[in-house]
Amino acid sequence: MLSKKIFAVSVIGGRRCFSRYAPVYATAGKDFDYLVIGGGSGGLASAKKAAQLGAKVGIVELKKLGGTCVNVGCMPKKVLFYGGLHASMIKDHKDYGFDVTFNGFDWGALKKSREAFIRTKHVMFEKSLKADNITSIFGHGKFTEDGAVEVNGKKYTAEHTLISTGAKPIILDVPGKELGITNEGFFRLETLPKKAVVVGAGYIAVELAGILRTFGTDVSMLIQPNDGVLVTFDSMIEDAVTQNLKDSGINIKNDTVVQSIAKGSDGKLNIKTSTGVIDGADCLIWAVGRAPNADIALDKVGIETTDFGNIIVDEYQNTSAHKIYAIGDVCGKALLTPVAIQTGRKLARRLFNDETKLKMEFKWIPTVIFSHPPVGSIGMSQKEAEQKYGADKIKVYKTTFVPVYYGLTQRKIQEHMKLVCLLPEQRIIGLHIVGLDADEMLQGYAAALKIGATKKDFEETIAIHPTSSEEVVTIK
Amino acid sequence: MLSKKIFAVSVIGGRRCFSRYAPVYATAGKDFDYLVIGGGSGGLASAKKAAQLGAKVGIVELKKLGGTCVNVGCMPKKVLFYGGLHASMIKDHKDYGFDVTFNGFDWGALKKSREAFIRTKHVMFEKSLKADNITSIFGHGKFTEDGAVEVNGKKYTAEHTLISTGAKPIILDVPGKELGITNEGFFRLETLPKKAVVVGAGYIAVELAGILRTFGTDVSMLIQPNDGVLVTFDSMIEDAVTQNLKDSGINIKNDTVVQSIAKGSDGKLNIKTSTGVIDGADCLIWAVGRAPNADIALDKVGIETTDFGNIIVDEYQNTSAHKIYAIGDVCGKALLTPVAIQTGRKLARRLFNDETKLKMEFKWIPTVIFSHPPVGSIGMSQKEAEQKYGADKIKVYKTTFVPVYYGLTQRKIQEHMKLVCLLPEQRIIGLHIVGLDADEMLQGYAAALKIGATKKDFEETIAIHPTSSEEVVTIK
Repeated sequence: MLSKKIFAVSVIGGRRCFSRYAPVYATAGKDFDYLVIGGGSGGLASAKKAAQLGAKVGIVELKKLGGTCVNVGCMPKKVLFYGGLHASMIKDHKDYGFDVTFNGFDWGALKKSREAFIRTKHVMFEKSLKADNITSIFGHGKFTEDGAVEVNGKKYTAEHTLISTGAKPIILDVPGKELGITNEGFFRLETLPKKAVVVGAGYIAVELAGILRTFGTDVSMLIQPNDGVLVTFDSMIEDAVTQNLKDSGINIKNDTVVQSIAKGSDGKLNIKTSTGVIDGADCLIWAVGRAPNADIALDKVGIETTDFGNIIVDEYQNTSAHKIYAIGDVCGKALLTPVAIQTGRKLARRLFNDETKLKMEFKWIPTVIFSHPPVGSIGMSQKEAEQKYGADKIKVYKTTFVPVYYGLTQRKIQEHMKLVCLLPEQRIIGLHIVGLDADEMLQGYAAALKIGATKKDFEETIAIHPTSSEEVVTIK
Repeated sequence: MLSKKIFAVSVIGGRRCFSRYAPVYATAGKDFDYLVIGGGSGGLASAKKAAQLGAKVGIVELKKLGGTCVNVGCMPKKVLFYGGLHASMIKDHKDYGFDVTFNGFDWGALKKSREAFIRTKHVMFEKSLKADNITSIFGHGKFTEDGAVEVNGKKYTAEHTLISTGAKPIILDVPGKELGITNEGFFRLETLPKKAVVVGAGYIAVELAGILRTFGTDVSMLIQPNDGVLVTFDSMIEDAVTQNLKDSGINIKNDTVVQSIAKGSDGKLNIKTSTGVIDGADCLIWAVGRAPNADIALDKVGIETTDFGNIIVDEYQNTSAHKIYAIGDVCGKALLTPVAIQTGRKLARRLFNDETKLKMEFKWIPTVIFSHPPVGSIGMSQKEAEQKYGADKIKVYKTTFVPVYYGLTQRKIQEHMKLVCLLPEQRIIGLHIVGLDADEMLQGYAAALKIGATKKDFEETIAIHPTSSEEVVTIK
């Protein structure tokens, strides 16, 4: 261990500039300037930013670099979303003049190509960590009482420590619960299930159920009492997605509690629920929420958590322990990759670039759900806005139409759009879209809303014809 | 003719409000308050807005309601773009695990469905005109010396007259020129040409060549000397689209002038050019630009035009003749449907809603080109920006990547993005995208740029992962 801080430092305009090409040594008596526990999207982004600012950085990862997003979340899900798009387009080929014979779908082949694609991401991460001189440490990191982090029996010390351990799927405590799988098991499935049961109605449930259904699986969604499809979103999204799921042939079972799961001699699952028995299922997928990955001996350093186990942080991501920070899903707020990335990068800049007031703004967070068709949403739902400002202060614009693509097809999947505006100037405080291309449509609007776009600004924006997106600015 | 102005008028807050349900009569001694010559997108929009504001409106159309966009432009083109998307997806089915046998493509069937779809638009227009009590007059409208408009031998008078006659394709004057077709003939083709020659390199040439190529046609593009693919756009677009056209198998012939066209006994075309002979072509498509439809006896009312024939208007769309206005392609400025629509609506509001200062702003006009993959562009090219402000005042951000969709496919079509920013605050004055989903991506950014988005605003916008559009806000 090096005992002296000998950064290569120059001073330009009063700000310390660390050259990323100069040799980097950690601060007084420590192994690292910055030790990151959890090599998911947020941790990696924060680690890299810190290293690029001259810090000596280590990153501890229990499983695979990239975390949930890259390995068992966004990325493989997006690939399967595109697979589902292929399945949907095959249904429409005839309507567009193409005579095509469908011979079959090979889930295993798609899994193999998907995994090869994900491996390219791992190679990229490894190269990228190397380029920034970041030390990767694989194993289960846990705090020790002196504030160090122990991995595989070895202790690592750091000036600053970041917790970015993410979250894990919740499994309900019923007999046979271990016979169910989660998103992780879903991506390990070697064959396409013929019959699947998805427990839950949040975005993960909607996405996984939708993917399976596009490939032809017989899918049931079990929705808990007092729950509904995407209930945390605007009611237009809830209604439209519920309808789309039903229209796609998904069997939605409301007010349904799983009571037990058993496996028959044929390997099929028998699922007892409060509303009846489902027999012969190939898999049951738990998608009822996510809980923090906080099994890192937080008590040793006195880090406070909520009753649910989320790490409590202030607006600068400081935990209750000195020089220990937390970002991302483990904090339980806006569980989204880009949120963790931006939070992580800002924290690194605060710590290693003297940007002492820099912090994440948890506002104007756009979300896309890769359902079929997708959902895009930013800002307040109509209900939230009316509750906050009063219904008389809110003006809502809605439209529903059949996109040009479906003008020629037997399948007609409507596009739904809603603007929530705050009177009198009609600042747009919510934008919600369900329909073809909502996924790629939203980002630009997210930028516009963040800088204060009003309904008049949209009206003055020249439309792009013929697109679906133009309906957002021309909505009446 | 009614001689007295007896609008149903009420006064609210000092502004005259015309009820659209009250009977409407034209102003003193005239057949109409507003007579629109040309029932394309711009004319229809202006007519409807005027009628909704209480004016008695007539609309004169030579061919079909909807004009170029609906009949021989945007709409049928967009349908064929989706057809091309199907053709492209078929190439990728195997990469996504689908075993599919391609038996054939029926251009005639697609044409039939496309035409049925377009007919639904005509029905919609007719209903919509009826709902607003607008009189449709079919025939060739021409001015008479007293400022009236004569159609099929009958004269119509109006207080205000709008010219929205659009534009028509230019045909180069070479022997056999009539053997070529234009966009109009393209949409009439009963069978898919096996071999086609497209003359031109603007957006129409690029779109039509691209559509034919996705369906398997052997396509050559003949580009005039001192011209290039989409040269009026940013050089990134020019380069990327040229490469994509080449990669798709289109034969690009630069510096090539068509000298003559002849038809052989087999019905195939023999095309002599400055760089060689092309034999055995099924069709030649003229796509070398568009000229105004100004054959409406403009001289009778003394309307001034440019040497090219475009009607000269001031910033309020006034022509040189009193109470005669012009909008859209016939003016030769920003030949785009939504521009004509917005200009037409604003003019109607100025004339019939006392919004005397209202006018179209010909700035921040987004454009999409439905090439394969599409192009989205708004604002200045890098070159324009550097010429206007000086290269030292401009900062450019560029990225090129393979979108997730192509992560699994043999075909790899890159996504290209460029931001042109004006220093020191880095206001984004140009945004250019070539790649998958650029078409639906751009509209939101168009809104953001119009209200002054800076690079920092984009950086502060939370990304949506995994999308291609997030790269616009995270570009470095």
